[in-house]
Amino acid sequence: MAKLNENFNNLKKNYLFVEIAKRIKAYSEQNPEKAKNLIRMGIGDVTLPLAPVVVEAMVKASREMGVKETFRGYEDSGAGYDFLREAISGYYKSFGADVSADEIRVSDGAKSDCGNIIDIFGSGNKVLVTDPAYPVYVDSNIMSGNDVIFADSTEENGFAAMPDKNVHADLIYLCSPNNPTGSVYTTEQLEEWVSYALENNAVIIYDAAYEAFITEDNVPRSIYCIKNAKKCAIEICSLSKTASFTGTRCGYTVVPNDLIQKDSKGNDVRLAEIWGRRQGSKFNGVSYPVQRAAEAVFTPEGQEQCRENIKYYQENARIIANTLDELGIKYTGGVNSPYIWLKCPNNMDSWEFFDMLLNEIQVVGTPGAGFGKNGANRFRLTAFGTHEKTAEAMERLKALLKK
Amino acid sequence: MAKLNENFNNLKKNYLFVEIAKRIKAYSEQNPEKAKNLIRMGIGDVTLPLAPVVVEAMVKASREMGVKETFRGYEDSGAGYDFLREAISGYYKSFGADVSADEIRVSDGAKSDCGNIIDIFGSGNKVLVTDPAYPVYVDSNIMSGNDVIFADSTEENGFAAMPDKNVHADLIYLCSPNNPTGSVYTTEQLEEWVSYALENNAVIIYDAAYEAFITEDNVPRSIYCIKNAKKCAIEICSLSKTASFTGTRCGYTVVPNDLIQKDSKGNDVRLAEIWGRRQGSKFNGVSYPVQRAAEAVFTPEGQEQCRENIKYYQENARIIANTLDELGIKYTGGVNSPYIWLKCPNNMDSWEFFDMLLNEIQVVGTPGAGFGKNGANRFRLTAFGTHEKTAEAMERLKALLKK
Repeated sequence: MAKLNENFNNLKKNYLFVEIAKRIKAYSEQNPEKAKNLIRMGIGDVTLPLAPVVVEAMVKASREMGVKETFRGYEDSGAGYDFLREAISGYYKSFGADVSADEIRVSDGAKSDCGNIIDIFGSGNKVLVTDPAYPVYVDSNIMSGNDVIFADSTEENGFAAMPDKNVHADLIYLCSPNNPTGSVYTTEQLEEWVSYALENNAVIIYDAAYEAFITEDNVPRSIYCIKNAKKCAIEICSLSKTASFTGTRCGYTVVPNDLIQKDSKGNDVRLAEIWGRRQGSKFNGVSYPVQRAAEAVFTPEGQEQCRENIKYYQENARIIANTLDELGIKYTGGVNSPYIWLKCPNNMDSWEFFDMLLNEIQVVGTPGAGFGKNGANRFRLTAFGTHEKTAEAMERLKALLKK
Repeated sequence: MAKLNENFNNLKKNYLFVEIAKRIKAYSEQNPEKAKNLIRMGIGDVTLPLAPVVVEAMVKASREMGVKETFRGYEDSGAGYDFLREAISGYYKSFGADVSADEIRVSDGAKSDCGNIIDIFGSGNKVLVTDPAYPVYVDSNIMSGNDVIFADSTEENGFAAMPDKNVHADLIYLCSPNNPTGSVYTTEQLEEWVSYALENNAVIIYDAAYEAFITEDNVPRSIYCIKNAKKCAIEICSLSKTASFTGTRCGYTVVPNDLIQKDSKGNDVRLAEIWGRRQGSKFNGVSYPVQRAAEAVFTPEGQEQCRENIKYYQENARIIANTLDELGIKYTGGVNSPYIWLKCPNNMDSWEFFDMLLNEIQVVGTPGAGFGKNGANRFRLTAFGTHEKTAEAMERLKALLKK
């Protein structure tokens, strides 16, 4: 009899966004008219289209695939074409991080790599996740049977958990700008995490998916802006939010050549090597037209066009933040992040607040509870909507809460 | 200290195609002139471009991604858009397999799914792999620490291993048409495997990546052409060889709704449910333009254009087969498969034969030893080249072996 991976039994029954979709569906079936005015500020999906230069690159590459002389089959390494890895390396340099092309592997997105990277680690690791966090970190570790411990992100630390020297961890998930809290780590804070990791011989898995939203100085765009980070950190990034790639699918993961850990016999193991081996056997690389599209993101024209989209979302974040200020509601995020993480009014439970917004004003957000216990009374709004709908949602919120 | 997955130490040092690439590189550096005439019949990569209707679909979808009204972000389920899953379901029906759209999950290729599907199974399974086999089956199980046992595909059984009732297995990898041997299972043979799986409460992982090359009656295009297969088999398929998608990346995996196994407490578990959960947390779906391209493959026009490419490769297979007949070399494959699996002349070892072909006639094939012990004296040639190069390689082979 085939034995099943019963770690799946330890997962919470419904993945957060599945549960949200279910509640929206139930509401819409019962209230078809009102549901027409639904404004979605829940799932962190972008709404602006791909930049023109990106579309042209994808169209051109698609056409190349139809001509024998320019057709591309399997990518030799599956790590990403040199043209894209070089472009990403150049992008890193532009904000002061030294990452060489051969340290980068292109993927179909940050989510895949966040989950799949666990394959290179053994069992028995203490996995530290900040709470609240993107559910994938916890769920993919539960599926692998790993023990997860939490570092609390709370109002007191600005929802940016810091290391506790009395707690040992082997793997550490960090995300800055943070999903869901919108908080960021400063250079000094990241230095503290890097020291902690080095002292514990731990590996940091750094999710930089929202780096393009950083506006403030002293907030690094990459963990590799921090000294010695290449000795202890893997960075996972994505074009989903940077360049509207949520439906186009392209990301990248950096495993530095200096990232070496000892195996149980005391031998040095380069993590890049086993990650390459994992991907070599279980992944065949990203679609050629998608890689050409991604390359275009990193051209000066592509950067300019993508920055326009990000500015658009940042304006939404300002609209939301101003409304919350006006209502006297506390929040983090919105400055270096498309997320606003707010305290539910009247100490409401986050699912209760979710249901209230859905039922009363047809606005969908994400209940903080879905991200961990420290989100029990928090709520995530995203800045990825249109100006019009964001402003409309905020008007409705004001009308509701000022009642 | 982060514990590493030391199962990686049990992998053979070099992945087959990496080793081949290394030897070609070394040869080319030492013999730059001769290397210019290299004919590659090793890695199973296609050479004909995407069909025109497929390119047009991808171009159109790429343009949609640049327009706000038609832009697509995250796919709701990540399982593939309904338009594509319905098209695949219809394709299955065309050759007599009843697979509903909701049993299909679209992926970025068969290799990824072959490896990732293991995540839903626990430890302690006896994994049966036919030998020789595509290295990914063995390697991905070694990475997960599973015990692999082998069923021998030999000259005696036409390189199509059959079940041994005295051996118990929990998971069974089958591939028909087979990579590397080009052999196929008939309806009766697959019925025997399905009975064996049902008797052992085992799950078959059926790799149908080469189904489009089947020409003979009584050779099923899908394991679901076999009665009761939906109770015991997962099928993994890909557009790589069917439609030149090796660089475009799209595949699909069927986990039937009737595929139910008991967990250790005796509860029924629908495998589709835990596979969906695995993918939901670790995969974000396939690029929208790629899914539109894949959809076009299944239109009547797409089928016609893709069949033309397959016919082209089949003609190459005939050229190779005729040459081997003329030389009196035994082989399997070539009829329902783009692969020809031949016995190395003079009982040569397969790497020895590889080096001879590379050095003497600048033809690259794949040493059978890379696929398992029963390939020690076998060699794989692929029909994916051009007519001209295939014919030229066969002329060189004749000249070499008739010496």
